[in-house]
Amino acid sequence: MTNHNNKEESTEDGAGFLKGIAIDAVIFGFHDDQLKVLLVEYKHTNIIALPGGFIGEFEDLNIAAGRVVRERTGLENIFLDQFYVFGDYSRYDPLPFKTIMEANGTTPPDDHWLLGRFISVGYYALVDFTKAKPAPAAIFDSCDWYDLGNIPKLVQDHRQIIDRALEALRANLDNQLVGLNLLPEDFTMNDLQTLYETILGKKLIRSAFQRKMLSLGILERIAKKFTGGAHKAPYLYRFVSTK
Amino acid sequence: MTNHNNKEESTEDGAGFLKGIAIDAVIFGFHDDQLKVLLVEYKHTNIIALPGGFIGEFEDLNIAAGRVVRERTGLENIFLDQFYVFGDYSRYDPLPFKTIMEANGTTPPDDHWLLGRFISVGYYALVDFTKAKPAPAAIFDSCDWYDLGNIPKLVQDHRQIIDRALEALRANLDNQLVGLNLLPEDFTMNDLQTLYETILGKKLIRSAFQRKMLSLGILERIAKKFTGGAHKAPYLYRFVSTK
Repeated sequence: MTNHNNKEESTEDGAGFLKGIAIDAVIFGFHDDQLKVLLVEYKHTNIIALPGGFIGEFEDLNIAAGRVVRERTGLENIFLDQFYVFGDYSRYDPLPFKTIMEANGTTPPDDHWLLGRFISVGYYALVDFTKAKPAPAAIFDSCDWYDLGNIPKLVQDHRQIIDRALEALRANLDNQLVGLNLLPEDFTMNDLQTLYETILGKKLIRSAFQRKMLSLGILERIAKKFTGGAHKAPYLYRFVSTK
Repeated sequence: MTNHNNKEESTEDGAGFLKGIAIDAVIFGFHDDQLKVLLVEYKHTNIIALPGGFIGEFEDLNIAAGRVVRERTGLENIFLDQFYVFGDYSRYDPLPFKTIMEANGTTPPDDHWLLGRFISVGYYALVDFTKAKPAPAAIFDSCDWYDLGNIPKLVQDHRQIIDRALEALRANLDNQLVGLNLLPEDFTMNDLQTLYETILGKKLIRSAFQRKMLSLGILERIAKKFTGGAHKAPYLYRFVSTK
C-alpha cells in the first residue's frame, strides 16, 4: 500500500501523478442517529477539507478513490459511487494549497503543479461507523467525524460537494442498499427507519416503512432478539446479501 | 463561438486546453421509432467515434460539454447530463490519435499531448432529432446518426460509453422528462409510449402507461387532433413546461 498519491503526501514535482485532476471523497457514516461525514484539518492552517487525493499515472480512477477512503478509514471494499465532476473554472483557487505548503515550511513557485487548476471527481462512500478508524496523515492535525448538521467552514467548494453528495445519496436510497453499508451487521427495524429518516430529513410512517422494507426481500429476521432491556424486545435483522 | 477546443481542431501543442482530461458526448435522438446516436468518422482512417472535445483553460467543464454538442448539432440549450467518468488505465491507447494525425499529414512526437493518457467525462445529450443538423468538422469524413441497434465498431471504449449512457438514460427515464427533449413539441400518447418502449427495450401496457403519464401532471392535451388519416384521430399532447 503506497501513501504517495494523496494530496498530503505528494512529491514536490508531482512526478507519477496525473495533473489537473483530483478526487474528493465524501465519506458518510451513521452513529447515534446522526449522519456524519469525515473531514481532515491541515496542520497549522485551520483549513478543513474533504479527504482527497490524486491519481497515479498507471492507476485506475476508481481504484484511486478506494485508496483515498482506505487510507483515511482503514476499511477495504467499501461502497463507493462517483456522483459528480466539479469542473467550473470559478472553483479554481490556488491560495489554500499555497497556505498549506507554507505552513509546512515550503514556499512553492507560482507554477507548482498543486497551484494549477484542478477538476475534481466527487465520490461518496458509505462506511460502517463502528468499524472505521479515522486516520490522519502526517500533514493533518486531525481526521474526524462531523455531524452533517454541524459542518464547520470548509475550503473551496467542499461544502457544496457534500450537499451534492447528499442529494445523490437520497436519490439512490432505495436502489443501492444504503443500509447495507451504513449499519452494523445486525440491526432493528427501528435502526433502519432512523437511518432513512436521517438521510431524507423527514419522518416516515412506521407501518408503511416496515412493509416496504420487508417487501424488498433484502432482509432476514434472525432468531435472537435485541436484549437491551426494552419492555418489548424488538427483532433483529440483517441483510440477505452479506458484506 | 470558437471551434478551437474540439478534438479535431486542437492546436499542435495543446496550448489553452486542460491536459489529460476530455469529454465524450453520447448524443441521443429519436426518429422512426428508433433511438439513434450521433457518431463521427475521422477522415481517411475508418475510425468511428463519439463526438468529443477538450476543456479550455478558463472554461467550465459543463460549458465545454454544451459546446461539443452545439458544434455537432447546431442546437443550443439542450439537455445534458454527466453520467460517468471513464478513468481506467486500461483505456489508454495512443494509437488512434496517432493514426488520425498521420492520416492528416502530421507525424506526432511520442510525447505529443494527444498521445498521453486521458480521463474522459461522459455526458449524454437528448436532442430533438427533427431540429438537429449534424455538422462534421474539417477533420471528419462524416457526422451522422446511427441506430442504436446498428452501431459499427467504435474506437477505444466508446461502445461501452454508449452502453453506460443508455443505462443512465433508463435509470433517469421518469425523473428527467426525457420525452421533453427527445420528442417534437406536439406528439401523441402513442409517440410517447413508443419512445419509452424503445429506451427500455420492452413493451408497456397501454392503459397503465397512459394513466401514469397523465398522473404526473406534465402533459397538456391540446385542442387540435392529429389529422394523419387514422380512422380514429388521436389527441395531441405537449409538455406543460415548454422548451
